[in-house]
Amino acid sequence: MKITENILRQVILPRKENSQKSDYGRALLIGGIPRYAGAIIMAANACVSSGAGLVTVATDAKNRSSLLAYRAEVMVLDWLESQLLTQAIQKSDVILLGPGMGESSFSLTLVKEVLRLCQNQILIIDASAINLFAAHQDLLTRLPKKTIFTPHQKELERLSGLVIPEQSSEKIQAFCEQIQAVIVAKSHQTKIFVPNHLPFELTNGTPAMATGGMGDTLAGMIAGFTCQFKRDLANSIACATYLHSQIATELAKEHYVVLPHQITENISRQMKFYENKDELTPENES
Amino acid sequence: MKITENILRQVILPRKENSQKSDYGRALLIGGIPRYAGAIIMAANACVSSGAGLVTVATDAKNRSSLLAYRAEVMVLDWLESQLLTQAIQKSDVILLGPGMGESSFSLTLVKEVLRLCQNQILIIDASAINLFAAHQDLLTRLPKKTIFTPHQKELERLSGLVIPEQSSEKIQAFCEQIQAVIVAKSHQTKIFVPNHLPFELTNGTPAMATGGMGDTLAGMIAGFTCQFKRDLANSIACATYLHSQIATELAKEHYVVLPHQITENISRQMKFYENKDELTPENES
Amino acid sequence: MKITENILRQVILPRKENSQKSDYGRALLIGGIPRYAGAIIMAANACVSSGAGLVTVATDAKNRSSLLAYRAEVMVLDWLESQLLTQAIQKSDVILLGPGMGESSFSLTLVKEVLRLCQNQILIIDASAINLFAAHQDLLTRLPKKTIFTPHQKELERLSGLVIPEQSSEKIQAFCEQIQAVIVAKSHQTKIFVPNHLPFELTNGTPAMATGGMGDTLAGMIAGFTCQFKRDLANSIACATYLHSQIATELAKEHYVVLPHQITENISRQMKFYENKDELTPENES
Amino acid sequence: MKITENILRQVILPRKENSQKSDYGRALLIGGIPRYAGAIIMAANACVSSGAGLVTVATDAKNRSSLLAYRAEVMVLDWLESQLLTQAIQKSDVILLGPGMGESSFSLTLVKEVLRLCQNQILIIDASAINLFAAHQDLLTRLPKKTIFTPHQKELERLSGLVIPEQSSEKIQAFCEQIQAVIVAKSHQTKIFVPNHLPFELTNGTPAMATGGMGDTLAGMIAGFTCQFKRDLANSIACATYLHSQIATELAKEHYVVLPHQITENISRQMKFYENKDELTPENES
Repeated sequence: MKITENILRQVILPRKENSQKSDYGRALLIGGIPRYAGAIIMAANACVSSGAGLVTVATDAKNRSSLLAYRAEVMVLDWLESQLLTQAIQKSDVILLGPGMGESSFSLTLVKEVLRLCQNQILIIDASAINLFAAHQDLLTRLPKKTIFTPHQKELERLSGLVIPEQSSEKIQAFCEQIQAVIVAKSHQTKIFVPNHLPFELTNGTPAMATGGMGDTLAGMIAGFTCQFKRDLANSIACATYLHSQIATELAKEHYVVLPHQITENISRQMKFYENKDELTPENES
Repeated sequence: MKITENILRQVILPRKENSQKSDYGRALLIGGIPRYAGAIIMAANACVSSGAGLVTVATDAKNRSSLLAYRAEVMVLDWLESQLLTQAIQKSDVILLGPGMGESSFSLTLVKEVLRLCQNQILIIDASAINLFAAHQDLLTRLPKKTIFTPHQKELERLSGLVIPEQSSEKIQAFCEQIQAVIVAKSHQTKIFVPNHLPFELTNGTPAMATGGMGDTLAGMIAGFTCQFKRDLANSIACATYLHSQIATELAKEHYVVLPHQITENISRQMKFYENKDELTPENES
Repeated sequence: MKITENILRQVILPRKENSQKSDYGRALLIGGIPRYAGAIIMAANACVSSGAGLVTVATDAKNRSSLLAYRAEVMVLDWLESQLLTQAIQKSDVILLGPGMGESSFSLTLVKEVLRLCQNQILIIDASAINLFAAHQDLLTRLPKKTIFTPHQKELERLSGLVIPEQSSEKIQAFCEQIQAVIVAKSHQTKIFVPNHLPFELTNGTPAMATGGMGDTLAGMIAGFTCQFKRDLANSIACATYLHSQIATELAKEHYVVLPHQITENISRQMKFYENKDELTPENES
Repeated sequence: MKITENILRQVILPRKENSQKSDYGRALLIGGIPRYAGAIIMAANACVSSGAGLVTVATDAKNRSSLLAYRAEVMVLDWLESQLLTQAIQKSDVILLGPGMGESSFSLTLVKEVLRLCQNQILIIDASAINLFAAHQDLLTRLPKKTIFTPHQKELERLSGLVIPEQSSEKIQAFCEQIQAVIVAKSHQTKIFVPNHLPFELTNGTPAMATGGMGDTLAGMIAGFTCQFKRDLANSIACATYLHSQIATELAKEHYVVLPHQITENISRQMKFYENKDELTPENES
């Protein structure tokens, strides 16, 4: 099932007049060892710009200054403050786990803690966190109901055991059914696998996107979209993924390489452009 | 009494030729525990951009780097340096207390210290500080003459005891008369209550503003406006509130979500647009 | 002698083809206690953007991160490293002393160290440093040959003993002759006093400039201009001062308040606009 | 052999559709003592914007915050973590060694470590690192096969023993043959010397580029270009050097001085403009 521009109009509905930030959800982003702090910064930037109501980043305290200098619209939690982290997890609507998180034993602790506390939250598992699930397959049995993995090909190999040449739609779909989680299988032809659903196939995109941080930005957008567009999880994910590529494709007409921050700067304007102005404002769905 | 564009022309008068920064007031902003540092950064950014003469931020020392990287035009005080803080409070024309301040016992100490030292200063009480007043109702008897609260609905409930469904104009006005303070009651239809005055009703605004940091930005704008436009406190507050929504409404024509920093980037240009060029330059009113 | 646009064409000559950064001078900026770090950041930003060849900032080490996040084009020296500071002073063509420096005994030590080491350098004394000279009048006898003070009215009162109502051109000129230093007397009608020279009078400017950091920005521009335009010190100072006001006046057509960073963003473009393209490229004057 | 616009079309080929970031190489940038952190920040910024697939900066840990606040798209390694540094060197396709690195004994250790571990990597030696090779001439015998030096005239004097007036093309070429490394000899008429090759001569450029940080930016661009355009090393270097000057020349039409960050902001757009759209997409060359 090819994703087309229609997905944008289908998902991006007008905000209802009588609404407040809490209607657009609380996103919690967990990641960023000092070496890879940029990953969580880029994810947070994308999540804020996608319109999540409130965005909190749980990260190494060393990242606070650069994160805030980059994007003051986020709240920043030292991930060692376990009590605050527990509260933040419990209060979240969406959790993005993994950008720049590393694969240390502490990172593994974070993964387990999230799994232990997650109930109705949407859980997006990205980057380092995918590798931790790959290395600890038993964790796959403890996934919350609404889980999304966003692996690139090598990460998917590690997670599923499917070597890259064997990553056919059929086999990935089978794995998706097995773990009962959405899989955003990133490649130059990204596909999205949803349990009991035909795969979504992305047909836009550009090699100008082949640069570090693009995946973090996509993960932040998925967090932002699923946080506020709650009618249909799969569609919201497909919409974020399509828009990410679509913005890059537009920018690539004038740029040889498209950087993550450029994507983020254009999210809100593009969302407005594709907002479905015909659709009556829906009742508050939260 | 609906607030219209007229409020802009009424308040935003041309600056007189022979003037200097001290004519536009000293604003002191107090807030920002490390976790919520973004709140005070956004408030400071808005206050500077609104045209306050001199802006000082008293905050946790850990926030200095990100605050300055974001906006070099502010002075930054470590709020633990109590002697410097005392001086700063005494020298201020306007104090904004609360954005990201938290509700610890230290935060309470800050509130009490401000109440003890405030005399003719305009005092704006926002966010965490509102909750502290809610929890320590005796503090409401010690308000300086020119006090402004900027609660959203839940904060107003805590402060006044009026549960949200009961927050009618009449009841809020009564509470306003009781505590003899201005109340900027934020909602998707913000109203401003002033003792012995009809309420101001905001009719512009957009759900694109429903995002974290918007309240901090409004508080910073109110600080900036009351700091320089001293003829009529209520009008200056109404003007800042109207302009905040008006800029968002304009931006929302092209953005699905409007971020706080976008509001701030447009303050000065919009103020110029609405500046009342017909009015003779007033004498220095400070 | 009114300063007119001509000063721009007179001073801003085309750069000669065969030149390198050292031809445009080394500027050393000293200032910035943590509380006032913004002052030295804004001065440095203006100095870099004015075209100084190399800009070093000697400041409190705590300011390094925010300074570099704001403007990576500067070198940053911890002012406690006295040996490095000595070398930097000796190698400089221009020293700007004072923005946000504070008036502690350490600040006084810095002033004395600069006076001890300065020989042919141009020395610009601004802000806190002016107050230190005011409080230690004996220092006025040790000024290097090319010294510039940039006081606003209150600072000039402290420095010269002339109370504001007595600050007539005649009396300031007399003080200027006495200390044999250039005085940029800042007010809404700034004048520049030069020994054995008629005062320069600024006629442009706008009250939109009356905001914190404008003086730091001017000081940085004077450093940048005197660093590269070495033919006539007084003209270079007058040129920087005129351009600073001229950019603000332009911006004030569309902004109610003009912030320091906005001035800085426009320096290079305005310099190009007024560059005297008729004048033959001068020989390298350095 | 004069470098013309043709070099851009020759080197900048369309990216092939089926590609990923690893196809565009891993760049490792080593440099930045705290005093000169801006140098490595500017180099990293240019490298990212040139389109390198993944960019890691190994630097003093104190620089992390400002680097990330400036450009979140990089990974940052504390250069004291020797095991991580060893891995990063081994995994890199291109190493840029030197911007703001200083000339301490630790810096020398870094140089030796890179030489010890480098095998097929492209090694770019810039700034401080050139001076270290100049002072330790024995290191010149241990250069990896693909080495590039980027000295300005004084650095070339130190490195080769050729005093500036003697730096004729013939003599530099002879030195280049002797050490079997590419030499980007920077001056207002930059030339590039390649073993067994005619020198490339740059004919564009502008004195507006004569400002601190331009060399760091060029070094970052060379890293970015050699990282992704692997067909012909000499051409890729010439292309980066030409584009750096060409962007500055364009900007200088409207700016009296061109700052490094302005160059960087325009790289990707200019690359797109000159991309050789006629050439069939080449096979993946990595």
